[in-house]
Amino acid sequence: MIRHTLPALRIVPNRLLDTIHLTSKWGAKFKWGDKETETGMSRLSLSQEDKKVRDWFVSETKSLGCEVKIDEVGNIFAIYPGQKSGAPTAIGSHLDTQPTGGRYDGVLGVTAGLEVLRTFKENNYTPQYPVAVVNWTNEEGARFPKSIMASSVWAGVSDLKEVYNIKSITDDTPVTVLEALQEIGYQGETAASHITNPLKAHFELHIEQGPILEKENKSIGVVTSVQAYRWMGIKLGGRAQHTGTTPMNMRADTFLTASQMAIAVNDIAKRHGGLGSVAELHLSPNVVNVIPEETRFIIDIRHAHDEGLKKMEEDIISEFSKLVKDTEVTLKIDDVFHNSATHFNQLCVDTVYNSAKTIVGEQNVKRMLSGAGHDSCSTSNAKVPTAMIFIPSKGGISHNPSEYSSPVEIAIGFKVLLETVMQYDYSRVD
Amino acid sequence: MIRHTLPALRIVPNRLLDTIHLTSKWGAKFKWGDKETETGMSRLSLSQEDKKVRDWFVSETKSLGCEVKIDEVGNIFAIYPGQKSGAPTAIGSHLDTQPTGGRYDGVLGVTAGLEVLRTFKENNYTPQYPVAVVNWTNEEGARFPKSIMASSVWAGVSDLKEVYNIKSITDDTPVTVLEALQEIGYQGETAASHITNPLKAHFELHIEQGPILEKENKSIGVVTSVQAYRWMGIKLGGRAQHTGTTPMNMRADTFLTASQMAIAVNDIAKRHGGLGSVAELHLSPNVVNVIPEETRFIIDIRHAHDEGLKKMEEDIISEFSKLVKDTEVTLKIDDVFHNSATHFNQLCVDTVYNSAKTIVGEQNVKRMLSGAGHDSCSTSNAKVPTAMIFIPSKGGISHNPSEYSSPVEIAIGFKVLLETVMQYDYSRVD
Repeated sequence: MIRHTLPALRIVPNRLLDTIHLTSKWGAKFKWGDKETETGMSRLSLSQEDKKVRDWFVSETKSLGCEVKIDEVGNIFAIYPGQKSGAPTAIGSHLDTQPTGGRYDGVLGVTAGLEVLRTFKENNYTPQYPVAVVNWTNEEGARFPKSIMASSVWAGVSDLKEVYNIKSITDDTPVTVLEALQEIGYQGETAASHITNPLKAHFELHIEQGPILEKENKSIGVVTSVQAYRWMGIKLGGRAQHTGTTPMNMRADTFLTASQMAIAVNDIAKRHGGLGSVAELHLSPNVVNVIPEETRFIIDIRHAHDEGLKKMEEDIISEFSKLVKDTEVTLKIDDVFHNSATHFNQLCVDTVYNSAKTIVGEQNVKRMLSGAGHDSCSTSNAKVPTAMIFIPSKGGISHNPSEYSSPVEIAIGFKVLLETVMQYDYSRVD
Repeated sequence: MIRHTLPALRIVPNRLLDTIHLTSKWGAKFKWGDKETETGMSRLSLSQEDKKVRDWFVSETKSLGCEVKIDEVGNIFAIYPGQKSGAPTAIGSHLDTQPTGGRYDGVLGVTAGLEVLRTFKENNYTPQYPVAVVNWTNEEGARFPKSIMASSVWAGVSDLKEVYNIKSITDDTPVTVLEALQEIGYQGETAASHITNPLKAHFELHIEQGPILEKENKSIGVVTSVQAYRWMGIKLGGRAQHTGTTPMNMRADTFLTASQMAIAVNDIAKRHGGLGSVAELHLSPNVVNVIPEETRFIIDIRHAHDEGLKKMEEDIISEFSKLVKDTEVTLKIDDVFHNSATHFNQLCVDTVYNSAKTIVGEQNVKRMLSGAGHDSCSTSNAKVPTAMIFIPSKGGISHNPSEYSSPVEIAIGFKVLLETVMQYDYSRVD
């Protein structure tokens, strides 16, 4: 792969980080340190705080000369003009956060995109083709319980009307997505469609949200794919019996069986080189002296490859059946959610890799999987060439107020993003 | 042991069962069958429904010629006169129920006591010494979270002032025990004291609340002791991590450890011939894609002997320490509750056994432990000679609307109680 020699643009140090902290005033919460910036965030999608950061984003990008399109489901496309016309090379992520989230998840990707445009502008650099920064609506799925929501509508994977009717789960009086869009004035007129409002490519700079880069002392992760995952709902039925009066051999103890199953999930994940856990569980009646007559839980299994995930699922079904075989516990398995593996576009991945190698040296770059889903899965599903750039997350912590990446890590991530977008744009022949 | 030949008293068939169903109108709830009597009960201690059944109990026993004493904590002593004066031979249990309880737990014991007095009266039978029927306040510990509450005050085991200040957990606006007693007019003037208001003996007819009698096809259980039990509070600390981004070997998964511990408790209980379970558990944050950073649960272990229970506890502490040893999960163990084993009085137990043998034949009688605590533990703690009579519980089900014992089982239980009290009274020489 050829690396083009492009003009070296002057970067304003720390401005991206300052921008992240500036936007955090809309939703800052959960102070964890002494400094003013040491708080988490609660900026739920389509909330009043989200409206403020959106208004700011629109105003900032317009001031740079962007055309701003807002689609039917609130996705914002800020398009910086190029020398030629064509579908924009996009830099996308999301400005909404978890209810007890941090300052970087999603926000880094959008503000870094803005910083790319600012850098272009200040250096009087005009890319070959338009470059868009995209803020996707409700990636977190926290207020409206469907993650990667609006990018999947744009990608044609989710139905607009169904999404409009999703009700919020964090409001005392639930509102629908459509009502919330109208409430803050972000139901735009552009069709939410990758066909009529296309992107040429999609790059996303994101925090890793896991411990691997930190543990391996790498500064950039080049994301080659997003692993497949499946959530299986398990319901065990037994008998509510008095713990003091029921002999051990006359019990139908659903929690004992659930414990054996949680251990089996762990073993199966390790055996197949995947991930597996039980992290959500409900006992009924959940009283110290009554054997739980019902235990419900959700299994989360993940694997780099669809076939690996399938094998894990088969093993779980087979081992769970054995676990209840000689008991009086009944087993019911429901499919809760499934996402196939996403494999990013080779050219995009290579562009990221070479850019990272140039900025930090090959020894500091790691090709890796993304464990979590991202808006980039939607763009990839829409056959838009896509890749992602990861920077380290301190302690692997995310979806938590203390989520943290250092100023240096952020600055490096930005440089890789800038180089990637410039290289990709320059190589475009459409 | 000598069995005295006593007059055969004429028993009115089915009246005890009719009385149980009559009193169930105060608190009937949770219909489970077609018949009017096929409901559960919700008659919380010192509630308005409880006041109604208490008023009825006082009125019925007074009409039989009883002296009725109400003590400071609402215990009702209905004392039927004997030929001589002396501390009464008591028949006691409780009229309060669980919030989702059945018709028999506790209620059987008090109404059967009343039926004994009615039978005496109709047969013009005057016992040697007074016979009391006692309704103990708040045995269930459901409204005011302290089970066997008022009998333990009477026994000198619990402090009256502390008990007065216990707040209800089932009311929207919590009230104290004292307020509730005053509200329904059942704060009596008799001191709650086994010293100034003594009983000579205490017999309690109760449903087994377990499956053993049914499974072994026995009609009467002679309770020789109440097993020791301990509740241990376990708190595991780990890290909230993304299930999709955290490699298996970098996790501090508290629920995985909790699962291993629940299995260990089960194994330890079986090894020592005791009982052990985890039935109350809380995960935090309890979200499918976040490793639980905290898991809290309560272990319930029981054993016939204090030494056996101690060994189980030691094994748990030792095995739990091993389970967290090479992990990053932290372990904290708290003592939540402990009750030593209660061994009932030999003469009382023998009196019950011989009475049961006479009524149903030795092959239908089983000497057994009580798994649950009862007011009889309080009287036994107060050095009052005590024993209990169990009848079968269908499916071992209790603390549940569908709790059930058949009319025949109830009639047999009553006959054994009547014979026991008459034999004990007759043998008294004080």
